[in-house]
Amino acid sequence: MELEFKITGIFRTSADPGPAREAILTLLKDARSTILSKGAPEGKGARITSVDVDTNGIAINITSDRYVRAHDAILRLRKPLAGLLGKEHRIGIRGIDITQYLVTIPSEQPLGELKIPYVNSMEYTQGALVLSLDVGLSEIEKRIPDRIISLIEDKVTASSYGGKGEHWDLLWSSGKKAHQFNKDPTPELVKLGWIKRGASRGQWIHGPQSTAIFRAFEHIVIEEIIKPLGYREMIFPKLVTWDVWKRSGHAKGVYPEIYYVCPPKTRDPEFWEEVADYYKVTLEVPIDKIASKIDKPIGGLCYAQCPPFWPFLQGETLPDDGFPLLVFDRSGTSHRYESGGIHGMERVDEFHRIELVFMGTQEQVLAHSEDMQKKYMHIFNDILDMEWRMAWVTPWFMAQEGLTGLADKGSVGTIDYEAIMPYKDEWLEFQNLSVNGDKYPKGFNVKSQSNQELWSGCSGIGLERWASAFYAQKGPDPDNWPDAFNKIVGELPEGIRFL
Amino acid sequence: MELEFKITGIFRTSADPGPAREAILTLLKDARSTILSKGAPEGKGARITSVDVDTNGIAINITSDRYVRAHDAILRLRKPLAGLLGKEHRIGIRGIDITQYLVTIPSEQPLGELKIPYVNSMEYTQGALVLSLDVGLSEIEKRIPDRIISLIEDKVTASSYGGKGEHWDLLWSSGKKAHQFNKDPTPELVKLGWIKRGASRGQWIHGPQSTAIFRAFEHIVIEEIIKPLGYREMIFPKLVTWDVWKRSGHAKGVYPEIYYVCPPKTRDPEFWEEVADYYKVTLEVPIDKIASKIDKPIGGLCYAQCPPFWPFLQGETLPDDGFPLLVFDRSGTSHRYESGGIHGMERVDEFHRIELVFMGTQEQVLAHSEDMQKKYMHIFNDILDMEWRMAWVTPWFMAQEGLTGLADKGSVGTIDYEAIMPYKDEWLEFQNLSVNGDKYPKGFNVKSQSNQELWSGCSGIGLERWASAFYAQKGPDPDNWPDAFNKIVGELPEGIRFL
Repeated sequence: MELEFKITGIFRTSADPGPAREAILTLLKDARSTILSKGAPEGKGARITSVDVDTNGIAINITSDRYVRAHDAILRLRKPLAGLLGKEHRIGIRGIDITQYLVTIPSEQPLGELKIPYVNSMEYTQGALVLSLDVGLSEIEKRIPDRIISLIEDKVTASSYGGKGEHWDLLWSSGKKAHQFNKDPTPELVKLGWIKRGASRGQWIHGPQSTAIFRAFEHIVIEEIIKPLGYREMIFPKLVTWDVWKRSGHAKGVYPEIYYVCPPKTRDPEFWEEVADYYKVTLEVPIDKIASKIDKPIGGLCYAQCPPFWPFLQGETLPDDGFPLLVFDRSGTSHRYESGGIHGMERVDEFHRIELVFMGTQEQVLAHSEDMQKKYMHIFNDILDMEWRMAWVTPWFMAQEGLTGLADKGSVGTIDYEAIMPYKDEWLEFQNLSVNGDKYPKGFNVKSQSNQELWSGCSGIGLERWASAFYAQKGPDPDNWPDAFNKIVGELPEGIRFL
Repeated sequence: MELEFKITGIFRTSADPGPAREAILTLLKDARSTILSKGAPEGKGARITSVDVDTNGIAINITSDRYVRAHDAILRLRKPLAGLLGKEHRIGIRGIDITQYLVTIPSEQPLGELKIPYVNSMEYTQGALVLSLDVGLSEIEKRIPDRIISLIEDKVTASSYGGKGEHWDLLWSSGKKAHQFNKDPTPELVKLGWIKRGASRGQWIHGPQSTAIFRAFEHIVIEEIIKPLGYREMIFPKLVTWDVWKRSGHAKGVYPEIYYVCPPKTRDPEFWEEVADYYKVTLEVPIDKIASKIDKPIGGLCYAQCPPFWPFLQGETLPDDGFPLLVFDRSGTSHRYESGGIHGMERVDEFHRIELVFMGTQEQVLAHSEDMQKKYMHIFNDILDMEWRMAWVTPWFMAQEGLTGLADKGSVGTIDYEAIMPYKDEWLEFQNLSVNGDKYPKGFNVKSQSNQELWSGCSGIGLERWASAFYAQKGPDPDNWPDAFNKIVGELPEGIRFL
């Protein structure tokens, strides 16, 4: 069973096309071997299965495979038909009505209940899904049917892979090390007063000692990566609008984990007086009243850290000697709505990350990724002395768009860095490094002077994750920390004491 | 005309109180000079204006002034009446019904249309507002009527002051200085490529040069304030829940300027599949669908920076030698929905602030505020060489709760730091320093070992504001910057070049 398209359409004409009947039939007959197979492999393309020249127009049935899709076929016919009718018969084509469009997509199993725009129905029979599309000329021109097919094909692939498990290929491992500590570090840190839960879910307040460790990590990143590799610091925005996520691709799938942001409908104090008064009288915040006074979400809180940087480059052309371009940001928080339950510091809704972004030619980007890998290896081996490993996984942007799959090694893809958590004998992803191909320069329309294809990459250093991995292996007592790290931390600040 | 309360209530009894009639009347008659005037000045308090001993209970009318408010009076009567009826007649009091409650509040003018909970009507007659309250025993016990009166009295005060203009008293001024620059700095910085607009409103992306200046400011704060005064760094959360704003007082009035945060109703990918599919097919984000799939707001983005720190101390007792406690945060963004129109960097919706918090006894907090003032004076005079002034203004927390007024100098209050913007000859508030009295330790229930009253203060250093004031007076050319500052900045990083 193969992909199959069956469309029924009518070219509406400005007058009875009867006088042109023979010419029309000839044109459509010839089309099979010309316009309807152009660009398709031998024997492939679209076929006209019936034609009915009526007083109002020309009704037509087309069947096709994936090469010249039936809706493309109907578009291809418009111009020659209009030429024929106009030149010789002074008849115009008023439009094209699509009365039926059935698409058959092979699938080993049915998909669940789905609500997909422009899809009237979807039935599963004999190893295939049959979709009835409700589209007109405008939707065909906007390529809606093509995107529906891709979407369904992705779902079919995902369902036959049996879910969303990420791919994972080991690249390197430090090997087993002895660990000074085997407890869950979070409750230990809480006991010591280094961290306390914040008021919101998955949120921590860091006391002076925990903050000092974060700053020590930051210091390592600056001294070992930022300075030697020549990164320049920028400040990336932290409220991210739909427009940015459309260009970055996150609009394809990031919805379940976003903290959404809604502005007030107006800043007029009188509009809000009722809410303030309600609170002042009852000491309860009137959440329903507030919900009615705010706008729909304009976007959400920072999720992946680099997308809101890209509007800085959007639509620009950069000089060739400006590459590789290396910039980083450490100016604020990221937020993800994580799955329920009580987590420690290793899985949080609000976290702090140093984000590094690199861009250049393919060669420059791949070479830079190698440089970064060496730097990270030095840090995790020689300064933090961790038990860790690297794996080649589904690119983060694919995962965040709800896709699976794995790219060729050494090209586009993501390296996950994982550390063993001795207290539960599980691995924790504590940072990643990705080569994202041309995705971002393309999405944000960034060009190079010489018009060479631009690639980019990024690496997110999650401070909560570094800390979780480090404490899990070394514990919170500096006596058990590597000398190289203690030298950077210096003396820990005194914590806030309670009675 | 004075504040006046008139309540009609019925003590519902478990049996006909007729047999106790004489004793009841005697008790109520005696009450005037005892329980109904206890604690009130001579001649003041509540008066019973009528009593009706019925078969179902005791109906009563009470009139009062502000000293023993009629609703308090009725509460005061319950216990003695219950004692009398229970002991001698085995009759219980089943409850108290309030059938009418009128409160007269003097006002020079009517207030506008208001929706206040538990207020049935509000009429303006003869120099006073007459409110009819719809309250029962439970509302009285929760002190709802008292909060309604305070609210209306605040509104009356505000309306007679003619609005919400902040108070302002000059404390110190640098005097006039010559300026090297007289343009609006924002468009100049944009031209130079130092900053670009972010995708959201009032949001900027900072290039390497602008970021370097922010880091230079941060360096000054660390070297001149953090280190010499002994501040310890912490990480304060950036998503703020209602609970925090209830305790900090912001729930009283901050609504018009908040960016609200709504989590997804669930993280289940199937629940969101429809949204992702809609986007993938149409390339439009289905905002209405999303709005129906998110929860009501759980709070908002960081507004004032210190409130979400306080849960770290909440409910704790600190040792006396732990004061003054000095902590600061620079871990993320603050967000305010500012009034419309295009602003430069000087008025933004997303900004970066170093927030300093200090706590101790009243003496310690006031002394520390003096120390801070000296440090700031040194920075603005000797390093940044600015034309600036300090003014004593309505405390920020009062302003943010929608209140006006001015505290005695040298006690609770806010100092605004303002710099002249030569291009428009206006002053820009570029930071503040506040002594907040016992508000925060009380709101978050923090105690000292010796049970001395704790005070706190805070100071917000807005980097966008420092930058706006500095550039406005000095321009973006380092040749025109003070040597002391250039020494800190060092060589500016190269910007990102575009063709």
